[in-house]
Amino acid sequence: MSEVISEGMLVYVMIDRKRKYLVKVEKGGILGTDKGYIKHDDIIGKKYGEAISTSQGYTAYLLKPLPHDYLEGFIRATQVIYPKDASLMIYLSGIQPGSIVIEAGIGSGFLTSYIARIVGDQGHVYAYEIRKEFIEVARKNLEKIGLLHRVTIKHRDIRMGIDEENVDAIFLDMPDPWNVLEHAHKALKPSRPILIYLPTANQLIKIIKALQETKGFIDINVYETILRDYIIDPEALRPRTLMVGHTGYIVFARKIEK
Amino acid sequence: MSEVISEGMLVYVMIDRKRKYLVKVEKGGILGTDKGYIKHDDIIGKKYGEAISTSQGYTAYLLKPLPHDYLEGFIRATQVIYPKDASLMIYLSGIQPGSIVIEAGIGSGFLTSYIARIVGDQGHVYAYEIRKEFIEVARKNLEKIGLLHRVTIKHRDIRMGIDEENVDAIFLDMPDPWNVLEHAHKALKPSRPILIYLPTANQLIKIIKALQETKGFIDINVYETILRDYIIDPEALRPRTLMVGHTGYIVFARKIEK
Amino acid sequence: MSEVISEGMLVYVMIDRKRKYLVKVEKGGILGTDKGYIKHDDIIGKKYGEAISTSQGYTAYLLKPLPHDYLEGFIRATQVIYPKDASLMIYLSGIQPGSIVIEAGIGSGFLTSYIARIVGDQGHVYAYEIRKEFIEVARKNLEKIGLLHRVTIKHRDIRMGIDEENVDAIFLDMPDPWNVLEHAHKALKPSRPILIYLPTANQLIKIIKALQETKGFIDINVYETILRDYIIDPEALRPRTLMVGHTGYIVFARKIEK
Amino acid sequence: MSEVISEGMLVYVMIDRKRKYLVKVEKGGILGTDKGYIKHDDIIGKKYGEAISTSQGYTAYLLKPLPHDYLEGFIRATQVIYPKDASLMIYLSGIQPGSIVIEAGIGSGFLTSYIARIVGDQGHVYAYEIRKEFIEVARKNLEKIGLLHRVTIKHRDIRMGIDEENVDAIFLDMPDPWNVLEHAHKALKPSRPILIYLPTANQLIKIIKALQETKGFIDINVYETILRDYIIDPEALRPRTLMVGHTGYIVFARKIEK
Repeated sequence: MSEVISEGMLVYVMIDRKRKYLVKVEKGGILGTDKGYIKHDDIIGKKYGEAISTSQGYTAYLLKPLPHDYLEGFIRATQVIYPKDASLMIYLSGIQPGSIVIEAGIGSGFLTSYIARIVGDQGHVYAYEIRKEFIEVARKNLEKIGLLHRVTIKHRDIRMGIDEENVDAIFLDMPDPWNVLEHAHKALKPSRPILIYLPTANQLIKIIKALQETKGFIDINVYETILRDYIIDPEALRPRTLMVGHTGYIVFARKIEK
Repeated sequence: MSEVISEGMLVYVMIDRKRKYLVKVEKGGILGTDKGYIKHDDIIGKKYGEAISTSQGYTAYLLKPLPHDYLEGFIRATQVIYPKDASLMIYLSGIQPGSIVIEAGIGSGFLTSYIARIVGDQGHVYAYEIRKEFIEVARKNLEKIGLLHRVTIKHRDIRMGIDEENVDAIFLDMPDPWNVLEHAHKALKPSRPILIYLPTANQLIKIIKALQETKGFIDINVYETILRDYIIDPEALRPRTLMVGHTGYIVFARKIEK
Repeated sequence: MSEVISEGMLVYVMIDRKRKYLVKVEKGGILGTDKGYIKHDDIIGKKYGEAISTSQGYTAYLLKPLPHDYLEGFIRATQVIYPKDASLMIYLSGIQPGSIVIEAGIGSGFLTSYIARIVGDQGHVYAYEIRKEFIEVARKNLEKIGLLHRVTIKHRDIRMGIDEENVDAIFLDMPDPWNVLEHAHKALKPSRPILIYLPTANQLIKIIKALQETKGFIDINVYETILRDYIIDPEALRPRTLMVGHTGYIVFARKIEK
Repeated sequence: MSEVISEGMLVYVMIDRKRKYLVKVEKGGILGTDKGYIKHDDIIGKKYGEAISTSQGYTAYLLKPLPHDYLEGFIRATQVIYPKDASLMIYLSGIQPGSIVIEAGIGSGFLTSYIARIVGDQGHVYAYEIRKEFIEVARKNLEKIGLLHRVTIKHRDIRMGIDEENVDAIFLDMPDPWNVLEHAHKALKPSRPILIYLPTANQLIKIIKALQETKGFIDINVYETILRDYIIDPEALRPRTLMVGHTGYIVFARKIEK
């Protein structure tokens, strides 16, 4: 149970609420911040949970990254699916260690990273993506956090078909998911769920119609999550003034035999 | 990859939105509903995703249960932590296959069931509970879904101390979590999170103060989730009229070395 | 400034949170409740703000009704526009003492009652309604609260045209408001607003299209209000568990010269 | 019913969603914008609802201001009470043409402006404010919109007492409203409401305790409003990404005889 930080390990460096960095430690590396820099060599040998000083004397905590910390360290090629939505989608999907999962598109790989974490080394994610630049970004992001081996990224249009069969869950984050429903139905194990993420009400209306007409899906549900976070002042507790008011709608349905 | 339903397996039987049942199949068993009964013997040999008729001729789908379906089949001894909150808490905790987790109290075991599902057979949950009646209920619930072997339920007051060390995450759902912070700090691996669920603003103010005074925790965050679900009518799409407006506040913090 | 209650006056009788009654006092009248009855004769001569006992000894407060209290005393023929929405709509409309207002349909007259209150004796409301049974209900409700003289109820289909000109604001609560936009444009004073209330996203999409195509409206805005109310316990402050999650969308636009 | 714009009149000039100006027209005046300037002299003689061109050729609409437009034209000395809250507070207060109202503090005068609009020339607002700089700002703002004659601004600490009696409603927007409850009770007509606006949960807990202990108030309610507005695209309807997540809590109570 070694928690000593060595080269190649990921560290989530936190100075304060606005200064948080996901760092892959390498000899000779430097983390530059507006509160001073930190030499990677000074991080090596420290333990997670310990503090270190920046060159300007500010305290920085060395933390083991959690899934939502990846958000800070990922290159972003696209709008990502936020934790508030990703967590509910994964919960509803029922994926667990060993699950085989289809995803399209991969975007920056943020949702993928959490799926890959949950399915473990016995599970696997097959991610379809038509845009090469996203594939490159997602690959780098997943490599950084050490989860790329659990993901097969395919430069393929999922609307043309899904190679895999008997999969445990399908996640779709694409503009026209209605063009994938037949393929998804074929690829899913019986009674398993499809999770679809859509930003607009117009798309929502269209996918509901398509799910109903396909006949192969039941238990169709649509959810919208709103997350408030609070200002942490025990003498003046209150929600933050600004919040994310909308990200997307989450659609859930289960495959049945047609 | 057998999906044929045999004795002892769990089936989520869905007739419609309001008639959903979590059934453990046993020879000679009967599922009674106000739309007619279903003989377990008729379920045996069917596959997940197939349909069956009730004695009154209604269609019932035989589905493989997902984590949120457990809600339907659990005996409830207490108010459970809802999926909208459970999913975010587990996400923020970063638990994954192999994680070792502390929980108190266990209540009806609903949050436990999802934690146990995610940590897999390599992980484990140690659940502290002071009320015997809750332990009995949680044990039955976890046994029903086949996850009891991943959970050690302790009839112990967690305010008296935590036996385990080097745990990956701690979940507290109890009225006075401030009385557990020192023990939690000792039990957690460095930099790992504590997740606390609290229904009232007064408790929230108190736990924030306690976390700040303890000095051993940083990155304190408070979240509140609001979940809207929609009426699934593509000609008249709209959120449901009634919704759950409040369940509880979620507190997150990470251990640092004091 | 007499606050003494006499025959014909309205009293809002409040025993507790769940026992609130809007009463028009008449000699010999009886208010029956499950906590005992109250004779109107015993109310006469009392002052607003005073308490009285029911026949079973429970305290009942005699209050001067506020606009949201009307909700309790109105016969309901239809789903009403809730205070959370009515208050915002009226605010956005800019109506004030002396305003001339068009409304369709009148429904149970609840929104009408608040409009009529604000425009005062110098203002007026012209309410179009095609269903006779609603007209009867609205008339009774408005008469009960003494505001009927400020409202002209027309048994007319507003889609056939609006008689009035130079009106200060138009409120539409009907399934197909797009069929009224041309008439509304003609009836409104230049630059004045139309407020439209719609329950579904499909209607919302349709009215936005219609407003944009009509060319005669700018500053189109759509709002949705969510109201949380709290459990009033200073030792355990928290929002109520159940809340109204959806009522309708509010559309605002201003007339410009075409 | 002249709608011709002449000197001294208020015009709400709207170029687009982000360029909206509240202008008091004066001969020789210039409205400068980043889309070109507009000479006031060119506005004079136009009618509300008509369009005009900026010096760079952009269309600007000349609108009659509505209460929420004042927000755009007011000097802001303080955080104002937003329309979503102001509208509900005024609704719940039951004020109408002729009402006599107490307010403290006046801040920038935004809530005052809407109260003054509703009470009309027969009503009046008495506004207490301890900070001279706010009084100056509020006075200028109210003068600009022509409502100052309905408001008496007092450079006085309301915690020292309220001069007026038999008032219809009291609005408090100050850090320690619990220090005003006794005075408020004395000043209110029997059964009339007090509306209190507070940003933090700690203040909320304190005021609820104080209201309960004072004994002179019943029907205590706490509300929180959440307002979502939408992106107006009929092909891609969705709520805006960012929203105001918190402003303040609204407390309502009614005076009873002690």
